Amino acid sequence: MKCSYCSKEGIADIYGKCYCEEHFNKYFLGRVRSIIDKFGIDGRIAVALSGGKDSAACFYALHSLNLELQPFYINLDIPDYSNACQKKAEELCNLLGYKLEVIELNEYGISLAKKKKPCSTCGTAKRYLMNKFAYENECKYVATGHNLSDVITFAFNNLANVNILNFRGNKPYLEGKEEYKMVAKIKPLYWLKDKECMLYAYINKLPYADEECPYAINAPTLKIKEWIHEIEGKQPGIMVNMAKSFWKLEDLMSRDINLNKCKKCGYASYGNICKFCKIRKR
Amino acid sequence: MKCSYCSKEGIADIYGKCYCEEHFNKYFLGRVRSIIDKFGIDGRIAVALSGGKDSAACFYALHSLNLELQPFYINLDIPDYSNACQKKAEELCNLLGYKLEVIELNEYGISLAKKKKPCSTCGTAKRYLMNKFAYENECKYVATGHNLSDVITFAFNNLANVNILNFRGNKPYLEGKEEYKMVAKIKPLYWLKDKECMLYAYINKLPYADEECPYAINAPTLKIKEWIHEIEGKQPGIMVNMAKSFWKLEDLMSRDINLNKCKKCGYASYGNICKFCKIRKR
Repeated sequence: MKCSYCSKEGIADIYGKCYCEEHFNKYFLGRVRSIIDKFGIDGRIAVALSGGKDSAACFYALHSLNLELQPFYINLDIPDYSNACQKKAEELCNLLGYKLEVIELNEYGISLAKKKKPCSTCGTAKRYLMNKFAYENECKYVATGHNLSDVITFAFNNLANVNILNFRGNKPYLEGKEEYKMVAKIKPLYWLKDKECMLYAYINKLPYADEECPYAINAPTLKIKEWIHEIEGKQPGIMVNMAKSFWKLEDLMSRDINLNKCKKCGYASYGNICKFCKIRKR
Repeated sequence: MKCSYCSKEGIADIYGKCYCEEHFNKYFLGRVRSIIDKFGIDGRIAVALSGGKDSAACFYALHSLNLELQPFYINLDIPDYSNACQKKAEELCNLLGYKLEVIELNEYGISLAKKKKPCSTCGTAKRYLMNKFAYENECKYVATGHNLSDVITFAFNNLANVNILNFRGNKPYLEGKEEYKMVAKIKPLYWLKDKECMLYAYINKLPYADEECPYAINAPTLKIKEWIHEIEGKQPGIMVNMAKSFWKLEDLMSRDINLNKCKKCGYASYGNICKFCKIRKR
């Protein structure tokens, strides 16, 4: 089929329009720019690279929009996985002319291999270290590669497990709080689905790792993601609407959350001691 | 298969257990009683009958629990539908020894046939008239036949249409506010799925109408209900968990809602004039 905007060969159908490579890139950047513009993002952005397609797409899109970027990688020391992913993140940085900063989780005395719930520890550790890296490197923002499919899956998984407080932060922009050493978070791919991010990484020949995290292989979220995409197939656009709803819910819920400073490390915490410091202590 | 609790023939499989008629009735009443007990429901209850299986099941379950009930029916004047439903509601009341009170929508000068969005008008009118009936008849509560399938479908439909404010009230018990002439609302079937309500009405030989409302035949909620039951089939129990989540969300959201008294009728309203009075005026 032909592109809906020119005479070239189409490569993607999105909400009833057909896109060639060039117009798909424009569409993709347009969705990212809508978030950058809406929240007036201006200043140094720490970009979290995981070695995967989404963070590669996020980094490349922000680079294409000429923003000031500092890429970093958190090495989680997962055998047959972390080093391969780091290599891809390094390749991507070399290609685009950046120096990749690397943070080693094991320098903090944490080993995922020794944890009963490695995914939960990993999530907490990554959130903490991303913020710390951005704060110490004078970045105003941390950008992550969470896409629309992740956002909806995360929300549904929380609904399915009655984890309402986890709705916090599930929106494209979360403002920073200087007094809590909390850097603003942005999700530039908030409006873009898994498949779109994959296609963007593919047509722009971005290096990314195909490996799946060995801890995530039987994750219940994979099933939920599948159902959500099935429903989207039957009613295109429902994912975008749901993301808008979850964003509004988050806004309504976050009004009266009490933040503290962690007594151990001084960073923001919902309790006296932050989850990261609790994990370190165990 | 045999009942998991006795040697009789099983008629239903629920969350891994098999139930005969007697034990299914016990299970069903147990789920209803859990709501009655949790919220200390005690006093006269106005029971909204629609003529359908759910409100019949709700009424019969509350009757079986020896609560003080006043059944009523709102005749919406929908051709080939409302009178047939009223007849079934009357049959049910005769069977159980109650007098059915009937409210006629057209006495309020409202005709659904003349409305562009009859379902929206119908919803507003029913909510208003149910409350008014209960208030004027000195009932402490209004009970409706909303079941678990309805609750989840309603929430998903609101997510899919970015109607976050509609989350209000989507929980098993909503407290009354005397100063706003607002009677408490209960949903005794909150934990029970469509199929369970149907089975309860069937085995207890309750009269109910099979007719579908002619306005609801192509409702988008029907598709959503289908998807939700498909997911429940793959992961039994997910609907109950989601209902718990939506209930918690509702609690978090309802903290700072401003209620007013309608300047026309004096009942509760979110604006100066309540939606019902606005509909009447049009």
